[in-house]
Amino acid sequence: MALSKKPVTGMKDILPEEMQIRDYVIGVIKETYGKFGFTSIETPCMENISNLTNKQGGDNEKLIFKVLKRGEKLNVADATCEEDVVDFGMRYDLTVPLVRYYSNNSANLPSPFKALQMGSVWRADRPQRGRYRQFTQCDIDILGEPSNLAEIELILATTTTLGRLGFKGFEIRINDRQILKAMAAYSGFPEESYDSVFITLDKMDKIGLEGVEAELLEKGFAKDSVEKYLALYKNLEAQENGVAYLADTLKDVLEPSVAQGLQEIIDSVSATKSSDFKMVFDATLVRGMSYYTGTIFEIAIPEFGGSCGGGGRYDKMVGKFTGQDVPACGFSIGFERIILLLMESGFKVPGKPKKVAYLIEKGVGGEKLCSVIAQAQAARSDGTQVLVARMNKNKKFQKEQLTKEGYEEFVEFYKD
Amino acid sequence: MALSKKPVTGMKDILPEEMQIRDYVIGVIKETYGKFGFTSIETPCMENISNLTNKQGGDNEKLIFKVLKRGEKLNVADATCEEDVVDFGMRYDLTVPLVRYYSNNSANLPSPFKALQMGSVWRADRPQRGRYRQFTQCDIDILGEPSNLAEIELILATTTTLGRLGFKGFEIRINDRQILKAMAAYSGFPEESYDSVFITLDKMDKIGLEGVEAELLEKGFAKDSVEKYLALYKNLEAQENGVAYLADTLKDVLEPSVAQGLQEIIDSVSATKSSDFKMVFDATLVRGMSYYTGTIFEIAIPEFGGSCGGGGRYDKMVGKFTGQDVPACGFSIGFERIILLLMESGFKVPGKPKKVAYLIEKGVGGEKLCSVIAQAQAARSDGTQVLVARMNKNKKFQKEQLTKEGYEEFVEFYKD
Repeated sequence: MALSKKPVTGMKDILPEEMQIRDYVIGVIKETYGKFGFTSIETPCMENISNLTNKQGGDNEKLIFKVLKRGEKLNVADATCEEDVVDFGMRYDLTVPLVRYYSNNSANLPSPFKALQMGSVWRADRPQRGRYRQFTQCDIDILGEPSNLAEIELILATTTTLGRLGFKGFEIRINDRQILKAMAAYSGFPEESYDSVFITLDKMDKIGLEGVEAELLEKGFAKDSVEKYLALYKNLEAQENGVAYLADTLKDVLEPSVAQGLQEIIDSVSATKSSDFKMVFDATLVRGMSYYTGTIFEIAIPEFGGSCGGGGRYDKMVGKFTGQDVPACGFSIGFERIILLLMESGFKVPGKPKKVAYLIEKGVGGEKLCSVIAQAQAARSDGTQVLVARMNKNKKFQKEQLTKEGYEEFVEFYKD
Repeated sequence: MALSKKPVTGMKDILPEEMQIRDYVIGVIKETYGKFGFTSIETPCMENISNLTNKQGGDNEKLIFKVLKRGEKLNVADATCEEDVVDFGMRYDLTVPLVRYYSNNSANLPSPFKALQMGSVWRADRPQRGRYRQFTQCDIDILGEPSNLAEIELILATTTTLGRLGFKGFEIRINDRQILKAMAAYSGFPEESYDSVFITLDKMDKIGLEGVEAELLEKGFAKDSVEKYLALYKNLEAQENGVAYLADTLKDVLEPSVAQGLQEIIDSVSATKSSDFKMVFDATLVRGMSYYTGTIFEIAIPEFGGSCGGGGRYDKMVGKFTGQDVPACGFSIGFERIILLLMESGFKVPGKPKKVAYLIEKGVGGEKLCSVIAQAQAARSDGTQVLVARMNKNKKFQKEQLTKEGYEEFVEFYKD
């Protein structure tokens, strides 16, 4: 029977070279976040389909891989729609599963609960270069911490991790959805159109101030509002301290504690950081997900155009499961992008053991074989990586391949 | 909207305590197998449904979680059967994906290729205590190695790993399907009924020699054959070296190289092993999967009734994908069983850093907060795990919970 050799459309096999880097990065992440008191957790890759289609996931909900019912529950012939044949779905992110996990297990979890999740997620996106339908996400979240200590810890832990992976000169851009809203309110946009305003604002880095102005006018917003809004952004450019400027300008529509809390995050992270990066207040930062309720932040790595991870506060989501809100804040590293950057930069995993290949002629057996294997075992317990293999007919080609795999030394064993 | 807090039926959330042990075991496995030259690989969790339903998977093929087609390819209303609505399936083991991976990538892989896979698999089994529908498998496989060097390396690597995890006094039971067949041939069973004979033989540890005899007779096999067969097993019990006895007795129906190769595995592993276990020839060992073509083996850990992993040679499977056979041999550790054994024995992960919790009174901010965080950062870079958290109203309860999480020391910071 002809079987297909290729992975399913849009997903990929991971070759040994990439896996070495992935394993190394996973190790650094687990160790570094561990030092900050984050504990690893895991949830099933499938969720009840109703949990995945509750409007928290935005456009991702259109991309769910759905799982067919089984046994007596399934009746394809009589089914008229998807709901009839589906009960589970593959998770499209790690946030919904985390919130369900917390709701299910909170009695056995400490407060605050600091969780580290690394796992695959699935999205049936149109396949394109460098984007896959199964990919790894790496999320840290703090549940039960209402103060900005959560943001400070999340940002310090993530930037320490990035520093240990060799990244420097990057930026953490930060904003607060309450500042976004206050700026819109101050300018006189009607509250129900904030989301539309923010969608346009989000394009600032691509289309500039003029582009944003043009699009807002085109959307039919009042000229006064658009001008007042744009003036805020123009004035911001000249400010040394944008947060202080907005705190003062927006004082009628913004709780003072919001700007103060944000400034405290910027100051304390800047004062205690252990890697080379800059905290930047960015009043144009929007981030798409509708579940954010407060701070939002993003990693910008110069080598990589665009965001390389981000997060924010989502204080209202646990309540959707339990009826009782729990303060929550999370940060997701762009794991696949980091791997890509490391691969492209020719990154070599540090501290790998010496690699030696023992090639044994066909026919070597009995006591001679025992002594070769004993020698390999001794070298392994001394820390060397030893491959024991039969010598191929084409020994030269075999050695070439092994050299590509990083084997530096060859020892050959013959019958006599 | 009411969302369900529970994981999907038959799958589970993994709590921090178990995750710590899982992460530790995964680390030991990757490091130890690495020393033997195994390289990590990964394949997508989904495969094309035709690859999963090709009769290689035995009963597991009845337990596949199937994935719904998407977009225009899906038409539920007009569908009459599963095939109409399904294109992918969740993998039920790591062997089929490995063979597909090897077929797809062999041009870029060394020969022999030594692969380590750790990943989730899914089986829609009837839910029962301690068995889950998503679980982790851990497989090592050597492709392209025709000699028994493959078996020797697989068994040494696996037993070294088990030793490092603290297991001792266990057994590796080994047999060869060619010996099984030769014993059946010698006894005069017709070739087409071997599988039926082996299914009965497989119950030896439960129903004993008499039980096997009774069942074979009940199945209608010739009395002569059954007696001859049982006599072989009775005689084996008295033998010091069962392999030598069978090599001699079965010499008309068994290639001498089979027994010789098996004995060489037993001898060389016994002579070079680095952990406390015994190699045992077990002529009653059958192992279910039909794809095995040569040696078969199994781990028996006394604390755990039944097998805790196993494997064997499957030289004909790559050919199913490529048309060209490639020698292959694999060993799968019962990862979930090992975790269960460690959890039940109260296993503590060694070498964990000291855990200290900094509890900060509400209202501590500004410079004071900076100095606390700077202190935490310094302790972290000295290797301590530091949790920085706001002090809860019920400080006593908070500390109790953190003590349960392993925090040994508390430092409290107040406003003045």
